[in-house]
Parts: sequence; C-alpha cells; structure tokens
Amino acid sequence: MIILGLDPSLSSTGWGLIRAEGNRLAHLGNGQLKTAPSEPLPTRLSHLATQLETLLADHAPEAAAAEEIFVNKNPQSTLKLAQARGVVLMVAARAALHVGEYAPTLVKKAVVGTGTASKDQVHAMVSRLLPGAKIAGPDAADALAVAITHAHHLASGRRGVA
Amino acid sequence: MIILGLDPSLSSTGWGLIRAEGNRLAHLGNGQLKTAPSEPLPTRLSHLATQLETLLADHAPEAAAAEEIFVNKNPQSTLKLAQARGVVLMVAARAALHVGEYAPTLVKKAVVGTGTASKDQVHAMVSRLLPGAKIAGPDAADALAVAITHAHHLASGRRGVA
Repeated sequence: MIILGLDPSLSSTGWGLIRAEGNRLAHLGNGQLKTAPSEPLPTRLSHLATQLETLLADHAPEAAAAEEIFVNKNPQSTLKLAQARGVVLMVAARAALHVGEYAPTLVKKAVVGTGTASKDQVHAMVSRLLPGAKIAGPDAADALAVAITHAHHLASGRRGVA
Repeated sequence: MIILGLDPSLSSTGWGLIRAEGNRLAHLGNGQLKTAPSEPLPTRLSHLATQLETLLADHAPEAAAAEEIFVNKNPQSTLKLAQARGVVLMVAARAALHVGEYAPTLVKKAVVGTGTASKDQVHAMVSRLLPGAKIAGPDAADALAVAITHAHHLASGRRGVA
C-alpha cells in the first residue's frame, strides 16, 4: 500500500510517500510544497491546493495521514496553519483518500520511541527506517514520520482483526 | 458590482450577495452552506468547497469579502473555523476573486455604528439596509453585513482616489 504522510503548513507543507507491506517499509519520495509569503493568503492557499493535486495525480497514494494541530503560543501562526490544513484535508478528500490524523507527540513516540523527541531525532530515525531516502528538509522528515506512523497503525489494526 | 459576503464556519458558512452601485445597495440572495457534523472533517471541507463552487458558478460575483478570525476562548472551535475558512478563501481565489478581509468589530461598526453590536442588532440593521431581503439566519445576516462593509469600503476608496 502506498501511504502519503502530510505535515501541513502555509509556507511549507511537508509530504512523504512510502510503500508499506505489513511491517516492511520503502521510501518512494518526499518534498515540501512551498507558497510565497509575498502573496495574499487566498492565493497561497490556492497554490498549495494545486501543488497537492499534482502530487496526488502523479503518485496515486492509497492512504493518507496528517498531523493534528493545537493552538500554541502564537495564535496567528496557528490560524495560518489551520487554514492551510483545511485546504490539504479538502484536496485529499476530493481524491477519495481517507486521512488518518495523529498528534505530533504520538508520531514522535511511534517513530523515535518518546513523545518529546527533537526534530533532529525524528529526522535521524526516519533516515534509519527508510534507508537511501534523501530527505528534503524538516517538514518532509515530519511527513515521512507521519506516513510511517500510519503504516504501523494500519499493520497493527490488521493484526488486531486477524 | 456584485459583492459576495462570507461568514465562514465548518457547520454553517453564511453567504450574502448584494449589488452595489456607489452607495446604492440591493439584495440579490443569501443563505447558509451546511455540512453534517456526523461526517469526517475532510469530507465536510470537501462538501463546503463544492457548495461554494456552485454558488460562485451560479451568481458570478465580481468581488468577495470574509470576516477575519481570532483565537477565542474555545481553541477547538477556532481550529475548525480556521480550516473551513482556508477552504473558503481557496475556492474564492480559484474563481479569480479578490477577497477583502474585515474584523468582526469593524463589520459591526460599519453596519450598526458600534463594534459591540449584538447579532440581533446586525440582523435588524441588515434588514433595514436591504429592504425585502428574507434572511436565512444569523450566519447569512453576518455575511450580508460583510458584503455591505465591503461595498462601503470600495465606495469610499473610489471617492478617495477621485
């Protein structure tokens, strides 16, 4: 199964594509969908949607997962992130993709083993779990971590019902 | 000029359509785009987008405006609202609409005269400014108020540069 992990944000939405067969994982691609801070918000959201639509058309993932969001110390950043995330979820739904949602601490726990892992630790562990993957940046590493978390979840779910 | 006012939310996005010729306003239509709380968030966002696309195709507005958002006492509600708003802005941008953005207090001040006006006061004043309008509900009233605010802004802008 091809799984797309997404780490939505307005300036740089991370994406990571893996193939999961039970517990065996393989890296297929990753990157970061960028929008220009100089553009108005609606234009940036439209560019984000178009880039994600192209990605889905090119790779035809069969499942998707995204990080959950919380209101953090900077409410303005949270609002931008949430608006971008709405667009990301909508585009995925239009591609008939079910989107699993995972809290960032759960992703860190699934990949590194502790919910308080640093970005560097996530990056290093993703590189180890997906040998040969050239990771485009921290947002792409987070997206691959979300994809890996979803793969684990699906595999354990299948075990659960077997 | 045909102006579409929008009051985005996940459960019920208000819309109001007016024709503005200088300071003369006429009501064209209003309503509320609803999504089912029983559906997953991505599906709801997709339904919201489809309803808004239909609305834009049917009425071909030449300008649009939406309420700004702030993080309020209920962060979960704010996050839902922001994700819906992202979809609304994206769909408007794809229809090549520029979207004016106004703080709720500014809308109340423009329509009622005070930034602390109640929902009922906004509703009553919108009914007075747009005689004959049958208003679908509070979200539609807010959306018409946003459209009126944008009409005032455009009219005063034109006076400003004349």
